[in-house]
Amino acid sequence: MKLVTYKAGKELRLGAWDSEKGILDVHTAARKLLAQWIPETMRDLIEAGPGALDVAREALKVAREKGDAGWLPITATQIATPLPGAKKNIFCVGRNYKAHIAEMARSLGREPDWPKVPEFFSKPPTTVVGPEDGVERHAGHTERLDYEVELAVVIGKKGRNISEADALSHVFGYTVVNDITARDAQLLHHQFFKGKSFDTFCPIGPCVVTADEYGDPSGHRLTLKVNGQVRQDSNTSDLLFGVPKIIEALSWGLTLEPGDIIATGTPHGVAAGMKPPGWLQVGDVVEAEVEGIGLLRNKIIP
Amino acid sequence: MKLVTYKAGKELRLGAWDSEKGILDVHTAARKLLAQWIPETMRDLIEAGPGALDVAREALKVAREKGDAGWLPITATQIATPLPGAKKNIFCVGRNYKAHIAEMARSLGREPDWPKVPEFFSKPPTTVVGPEDGVERHAGHTERLDYEVELAVVIGKKGRNISEADALSHVFGYTVVNDITARDAQLLHHQFFKGKSFDTFCPIGPCVVTADEYGDPSGHRLTLKVNGQVRQDSNTSDLLFGVPKIIEALSWGLTLEPGDIIATGTPHGVAAGMKPPGWLQVGDVVEAEVEGIGLLRNKIIP
Repeated sequence: MKLVTYKAGKELRLGAWDSEKGILDVHTAARKLLAQWIPETMRDLIEAGPGALDVAREALKVAREKGDAGWLPITATQIATPLPGAKKNIFCVGRNYKAHIAEMARSLGREPDWPKVPEFFSKPPTTVVGPEDGVERHAGHTERLDYEVELAVVIGKKGRNISEADALSHVFGYTVVNDITARDAQLLHHQFFKGKSFDTFCPIGPCVVTADEYGDPSGHRLTLKVNGQVRQDSNTSDLLFGVPKIIEALSWGLTLEPGDIIATGTPHGVAAGMKPPGWLQVGDVVEAEVEGIGLLRNKIIP
Repeated sequence: MKLVTYKAGKELRLGAWDSEKGILDVHTAARKLLAQWIPETMRDLIEAGPGALDVAREALKVAREKGDAGWLPITATQIATPLPGAKKNIFCVGRNYKAHIAEMARSLGREPDWPKVPEFFSKPPTTVVGPEDGVERHAGHTERLDYEVELAVVIGKKGRNISEADALSHVFGYTVVNDITARDAQLLHHQFFKGKSFDTFCPIGPCVVTADEYGDPSGHRLTLKVNGQVRQDSNTSDLLFGVPKIIEALSWGLTLEPGDIIATGTPHGVAAGMKPPGWLQVGDVVEAEVEGIGLLRNKIIP
């Protein structure tokens, strides 16, 4: 099942995405078609547990069979970021694809060193924007604006000290993150945080694909284009630390909660690795896509 | 004015702290004594702006003049962390006192390098505990449990690209943070995040002193004791980057919001800097104090 948060006037609604039929208001569909109540936001649906998701799935199934179930056309619907109203920062993994580690080391004139464990940082909720929103250029603060397409995990079940073997049972689903980065600020401030945390630096979406539908998070192609030119083209099977290992390491002594988002790192092909570097400029259109999930299409704005 | 969040049965209430009279339920006092409504939580009070704080201040003044205003004795009141219900991680500054930077470099057998700008990282809300709560030892994940007393800033007014000159007008008040750290995890994972983010690693409190009462954030003594032995003893005037500069640098391209907490860094005297290192063990009592604010007293628990 593909879940979205879409704009209905000033309101944000939970929707199910069907590439043929359109977007379904699943809360309303569950009430009208099944006489059952499910939460009205994706965050609340995740927190409500598997029973609520089963009802949403059943509502979608019945709505697919009925013609008059209230499908909204995809082209006429504005998709928002799937999980607004965050309670904490986005968890992120740095340096998690070998070829990307190598290109970054090269760009700094250093030998690559390989991480022994996943390296984590965070992006505050003020960075989060939707799949079609503008990303600010922040010209006063950076001359080196970069992109990073990433597979992101949405946690479904609370847990701490989760084992690699048990990790995928804690996943609600998957989404796409573009981990926009000011490379100069990232280096100047030593810790990654500052250069990753300017407003609008975290497009997320367009949907969350539930874990049962997505299957193994490994083996999915991810690509990023700038103005139609392919910059990143890799596969989640190239992750140095795969999703289960990331969840295990992050949850060491740290409780993961439903709705938490973990961006898993980016492959090679970033602007910093190009000769000359292909920094983003106002007007550029950045398309970040992960196979089986969807596309973020964000324009760089002043 | 000193504001606290205290436990009333299972509820958390907003209180004003008077060292002689006790704790006052300011929401109720404003209603009963002034027939005025103010928010019921500290977070909502901050978001409501200066007018609401003025009413709280007036209620406190009137209550001080009346004998029967409903003061709760401090000794019988359980103080919680002042700002529960976070919407993002705690912002933290690393390496911000010269003698601490020198001791950490020494402990790693390196020459110190001085930061050119404040270096930021974050701690998720799952780390936050109250001023008298237990801090977990996390024996399975760290052999090097350390403490860090810090002055922390609470933001009162939304802003981005805030100038150093204007920075203090964005401050609601000040509190104390003990930035508990697993030094081995901090080093192993390269980025500071993981070693700073285990559950219970962020005691905050006991109160928030409003900016008008606290005055200049520079010039306040901060101390930390382990089992009564003084480990850290310094002054916020030794900060490499003072509060105005921190707010300026953090807000470069990043919107700060009411209720945001910024821990400003720790002085020398941490366990890692001792010979031999004085790592925290189960049963140790850690007292972190900033002059004019108050004391965090946390026991290390299994």
